[in-house]
Amino acid sequence: MSTPFLTPVQDGIKEVEQLMRSQAGNEHHPDLRAALEHLLVAGGKRIRPTIVFLAGNLFNAPHKKLVTLGAAIEMLHTATLVHDDLIDGSLLRRGIPTLNARWSPAATVLTGDFLFGRAAKLAAETDYLPIMKLFAETLTVIVNGELTQMFAAKGIIERKNYYSRIYAKTGSLFEMSALSATMLGTEDESVRASMKTYGYEVGMAFQIMDDVLDFTGEQATVGKPVGSDLLNGLVTLPAIYYVESHPDNPEVKLLAEGGWGNTDKMEILVKSIQSSNAIRHAIDEAVEHVDKALDAIKPFNSSPEYESLEGLAHYIVDRDF
Amino acid sequence: MSTPFLTPVQDGIKEVEQLMRSQAGNEHHPDLRAALEHLLVAGGKRIRPTIVFLAGNLFNAPHKKLVTLGAAIEMLHTATLVHDDLIDGSLLRRGIPTLNARWSPAATVLTGDFLFGRAAKLAAETDYLPIMKLFAETLTVIVNGELTQMFAAKGIIERKNYYSRIYAKTGSLFEMSALSATMLGTEDESVRASMKTYGYEVGMAFQIMDDVLDFTGEQATVGKPVGSDLLNGLVTLPAIYYVESHPDNPEVKLLAEGGWGNTDKMEILVKSIQSSNAIRHAIDEAVEHVDKALDAIKPFNSSPEYESLEGLAHYIVDRDF
Repeated sequence: MSTPFLTPVQDGIKEVEQLMRSQAGNEHHPDLRAALEHLLVAGGKRIRPTIVFLAGNLFNAPHKKLVTLGAAIEMLHTATLVHDDLIDGSLLRRGIPTLNARWSPAATVLTGDFLFGRAAKLAAETDYLPIMKLFAETLTVIVNGELTQMFAAKGIIERKNYYSRIYAKTGSLFEMSALSATMLGTEDESVRASMKTYGYEVGMAFQIMDDVLDFTGEQATVGKPVGSDLLNGLVTLPAIYYVESHPDNPEVKLLAEGGWGNTDKMEILVKSIQSSNAIRHAIDEAVEHVDKALDAIKPFNSSPEYESLEGLAHYIVDRDF
Repeated sequence: MSTPFLTPVQDGIKEVEQLMRSQAGNEHHPDLRAALEHLLVAGGKRIRPTIVFLAGNLFNAPHKKLVTLGAAIEMLHTATLVHDDLIDGSLLRRGIPTLNARWSPAATVLTGDFLFGRAAKLAAETDYLPIMKLFAETLTVIVNGELTQMFAAKGIIERKNYYSRIYAKTGSLFEMSALSATMLGTEDESVRASMKTYGYEVGMAFQIMDDVLDFTGEQATVGKPVGSDLLNGLVTLPAIYYVESHPDNPEVKLLAEGGWGNTDKMEILVKSIQSSNAIRHAIDEAVEHVDKALDAIKPFNSSPEYESLEGLAHYIVDRDF
């Protein structure tokens, strides 16, 4: 899968990475600088800053502000990942050791906090209060989602629960990326609402595809065992589809009765889901989100940036398949 | 020691506590609400919001904005305490069980993060970008200070190290309290600078007195064993004064050679410090900071709020003695 939509933003992404790197200024501790460097090298697709540039360019937002905003959002994302990995005890992310695999829990907590501080500082440097409010609200949504997931009973098979979880985890920050970049370019509320929808729908599609990949991906690519969500009591969309269409399957019955902790049976269930229509149904649902995203930006289809936004949306449902 | 300076701000403090309480809205998880309630009940002196009101009232800052700012600052303070207690493994604070004494580390990390998010949201609601920037910068200073302390070798006997540590830990947020409240009332840069100095000096005095109390306080009041800083390798001002005046004391020599881990000897050193002039010298230094704070606000000594600011500064060096 090629990614031509990335070409117009490549230089911007480099500026974002440079700005992120510079946040660990010389006045800070060398170990902290090393940790930030490690996190930056670990990288990732920078898909959120990509959305920031594509949306911002569509409405002629000032480039420098978009760099600042992109760095703020990517640092917020990184901060939540650092604490997430610590909480989950994850030792690898994208094939690279996590911070907590190398550092003490205490240092990992504080490094995440430092990233929150820097992300907030960058968000404030966009010099636009509504973005700052959106930033704070999004942080709250993300953390509240994680708390809810932590306190909730495991093995819950419920669409409403699933959707609110993936909104908190992914949809909210994608939504913020598209909306806040647009806010830097236009005050037109209906345009802002359209771009907010684009970010939301693309984010929901992205997370659904991530959850599909948990069943279909190679362990080497995904970086964790196949079916690990379900084995950890996290019921995602493919599993929900399978449960709906196979209510009498013995493993489905076990899961519904709270038996997600039975690893042998759950591994059987993972295999059943993999070879069922549930995967296709989940992908179809992600495609529906992408269609809604494209609907939302149709008014701008004469702009050169439209094609890139369209390309990014399609990429999300096509990647790695 | 009476606290008449609190009288004019008592109603405001109640509003701050109500606003903090309302941050755990109904949409959030009941366990999270319980945790926030627990943190609010654990309370504390609310000295930072007190400074916010006294400074803000001096320059006729809008009351509602001061309530928002006071809640933002107190929530930021609470967030850092939650992560601090987790990192230190503290089970009690102000005689009440810490969050991590009752909850898992994961839930404690996330609750702290939630408080960061809410604090940032409240700071943004002051609708004044320079305050938002100051907020983000202060968060970074606090966290960087904790990281530096964590990475630094223990047992360091050095004034410069001590001062930068207590600035990060306490001075910075006191400084922000006085400065940001003033910013809501006046654009006069020299007035802002004076109030910033007041906050800084009062904060430094406050932390020095806290460090003195670690040697002189009753365990029941302080909530931790007497001399616990030194026993944990943290060399504070009373110890620095003692080392300077007793270079040939055998325990001082041991400490200077990195022997802070020898608990028996350090307990002897704690007793020596307690009964020495070092305590008086440290208190005198705190008083010097208070004098500088009062110098800074002298231009406003015809205002009714001046007396309260003066009373608060004196209270800091007189409390519990």
